[in-house]
Amino acid sequence: MKNATRITNVTITPVAFRDPPLLNAVGVHQPFALRSIIEVATSDGVTGLSESYGDAGFLERLRVVGEAVRGLDVFATNQLLATTARTLGGVVGGDAHGLTGQISATGTVLRVYAALEVACLDVQGKLLARPVCDLLGGRVRSSVPFSAYLFYKWASHPGDQPDRCHEALGPEGIVDQARWMLSAFGFRAIKLKGGVLAPDEEVASIFALRDAFPDVPLRLDPNTAWSVDTSIRVGRELDGILEYLEDPTPGIEGMARVAKEVSMPLATNMCVVGFEDVAPAVVKGAVGVILSDHHYWGGLHKVKELAAICDAFDLGLSMHSNSHLGVSLAAMTHVAATVPNLTYALDTHWPWKDEDVVVGGALSLRDGAVEVPSSPGLGVELDRDALARLHEQYRASGVTERSDTLYMQTIDPSYDANLPRW
Amino acid sequence: MKNATRITNVTITPVAFRDPPLLNAVGVHQPFALRSIIEVATSDGVTGLSESYGDAGFLERLRVVGEAVRGLDVFATNQLLATTARTLGGVVGGDAHGLTGQISATGTVLRVYAALEVACLDVQGKLLARPVCDLLGGRVRSSVPFSAYLFYKWASHPGDQPDRCHEALGPEGIVDQARWMLSAFGFRAIKLKGGVLAPDEEVASIFALRDAFPDVPLRLDPNTAWSVDTSIRVGRELDGILEYLEDPTPGIEGMARVAKEVSMPLATNMCVVGFEDVAPAVVKGAVGVILSDHHYWGGLHKVKELAAICDAFDLGLSMHSNSHLGVSLAAMTHVAATVPNLTYALDTHWPWKDEDVVVGGALSLRDGAVEVPSSPGLGVELDRDALARLHEQYRASGVTERSDTLYMQTIDPSYDANLPRW
Repeated sequence: MKNATRITNVTITPVAFRDPPLLNAVGVHQPFALRSIIEVATSDGVTGLSESYGDAGFLERLRVVGEAVRGLDVFATNQLLATTARTLGGVVGGDAHGLTGQISATGTVLRVYAALEVACLDVQGKLLARPVCDLLGGRVRSSVPFSAYLFYKWASHPGDQPDRCHEALGPEGIVDQARWMLSAFGFRAIKLKGGVLAPDEEVASIFALRDAFPDVPLRLDPNTAWSVDTSIRVGRELDGILEYLEDPTPGIEGMARVAKEVSMPLATNMCVVGFEDVAPAVVKGAVGVILSDHHYWGGLHKVKELAAICDAFDLGLSMHSNSHLGVSLAAMTHVAATVPNLTYALDTHWPWKDEDVVVGGALSLRDGAVEVPSSPGLGVELDRDALARLHEQYRASGVTERSDTLYMQTIDPSYDANLPRW
Repeated sequence: MKNATRITNVTITPVAFRDPPLLNAVGVHQPFALRSIIEVATSDGVTGLSESYGDAGFLERLRVVGEAVRGLDVFATNQLLATTARTLGGVVGGDAHGLTGQISATGTVLRVYAALEVACLDVQGKLLARPVCDLLGGRVRSSVPFSAYLFYKWASHPGDQPDRCHEALGPEGIVDQARWMLSAFGFRAIKLKGGVLAPDEEVASIFALRDAFPDVPLRLDPNTAWSVDTSIRVGRELDGILEYLEDPTPGIEGMARVAKEVSMPLATNMCVVGFEDVAPAVVKGAVGVILSDHHYWGGLHKVKELAAICDAFDLGLSMHSNSHLGVSLAAMTHVAATVPNLTYALDTHWPWKDEDVVVGGALSLRDGAVEVPSSPGLGVELDRDALARLHEQYRASGVTERSDTLYMQTIDPSYDANLPRW
């Protein structure tokens, strides 16, 4: 093809950024969260950016695929996907950390592909001098709302100075945390990460949030920590209180049994994590809301395909978040801006981090929302010094895998991460 | 936005082209087929092309929307859709001709939107100096296979000279027609338009085709001319003979009853004609193959969304055709080139026409396939003289609506188009 803009090189920089001791159903966040920053250089001298997982297995798969895709046109994303699948040859990624469901061979391909697709879209946007959202049908909203993401947490990692955010191990700490987060960022929806305390204690936190913020939509995500019976009991107690209940119990079968007995929609990023899961979930009526995430659904265009499926099957659509930096925030914002039926405020861990790799000020959370960038591509630029610092932090940390469970077990050797727990 | 390429004017030219007396379940093709040629002029001096329906009601809706969308950015297709919906305000198009299912208010919007979306994609491609398929993820095949589309037909329209293609009113005529079409165009799949003769006579034609072309996949489309019982009986007689049976009987319920009793997949462009029909059809197991058509599914991106749905729900995907000219052929080819799971040869009426509005040679059917254009945009250019001639033909014909039934009734006043007939 005459007009090809070909991939000449893929650079992957693993980075680590400080992460507070946020508790969840399988353990606690390690002192550093890992990510990869991907730079796709092209024959036109334009470089595209993207951000994804930082686990060693993922980095290695991305490295191998990054070599295989040299020479491909940045608009040939179908070929990029086919090359990724061929190169990985059916390997199944082993770096699930227990909170986003099983990873399949297809999911392994889509994770690697997504990281490259976003960078190609950044290149495409820069070539056109247009924001990435314009490549996805254009914005249907000028800013994208996110939700406050509350966690039970310790005051600090063991042996460290206290965090800027206090301990939260009950309703009072959670309400305090919400006050801080809402006043600092202006969020208009709240999600509480559950599965940490006994269900009745988490219900108490939800009721405390309802009292403190009577008009703010609330969500609770126990990450499959509950049995079907517990899920039904708790779901009924929270009737009229939650906008959705996320992954109360494992599996499509279990979720379907709960869905029949509770009033609020069930949301998931654990039992429907790929296109092959949608039909079984629809047939069983297991979920009312799917949490998209371009990092594992296969990039921005595939999030739009998922959105079309949700629209056709009358499912709600929201967005999942792992701990992430500014490049991911930009990608999430661009795609969310273009999806009419992405009506729920998106999840983000954004408030929990205090360092980044992008030049500051490109994106910020104001009034609970991020303004959709209008500059070319994703609209973010790497801060080379910050990137080098976070890469050095990655190197020095010695951490190469996320394991909230193993880290927890270094603190509490008796910790058992088997779910459902209650 | 700084870089907007804004729509400055939408020109709609209705055209009529000669059409042979092709018979179907609701009558016979009129001597002229109607289409509209749409030109979208922009602030950058680039003009985008598209082709769609030519019925008076459609032309008027397109005219009104064409004025409303002035000023929109050609990349802002989400806004284009919203503006189209707002402008049409829930009106329901009354120009169904009986062969593509009921038109809903949503379908009315998507028809008008599609005509404009394709032209915007042509502009986008020209701005980027890239073929439209590159805006859809890039080609997964370098040429797109089409199928031979056989019709029962008269030797000529009443009072006219005989056509270049002979009468076909039984197995022999159909096999002769297939021989001509396969040798002239190299097709490797055959579709017979049925619903014209009694089912047993059409079965005889299919068996004659099977004998004459033992290795060519065959399809039969009676356009809901049969009852459920007839469909089951005929479907069983054709066990192992058809790659799919298209719309044997009306409605999702009826199709589901047939699907349970026959071996071949049922295809449809009549009971699933919009995104709102997919879920009911899936729940009932009514169809195995959906025939897409960008003209009424809402443009090229929405065909890709439909493809994603088919992939997720394990449905086959094919493509429907009305009588069309070269601009539509280009659009069909571009989108089909980018959809991995569009594995069936596409329908086209192409062999039945002998005039066009595009500069000759841009697209041709060789070995049953069309090579995917590599030139910018759709890769077709208007022949202004031809456009003027076909527009004059439209004006002189006095025809403003397609009605195969009314035309048939001018010839046979007792003709009854009520279906199912057998």
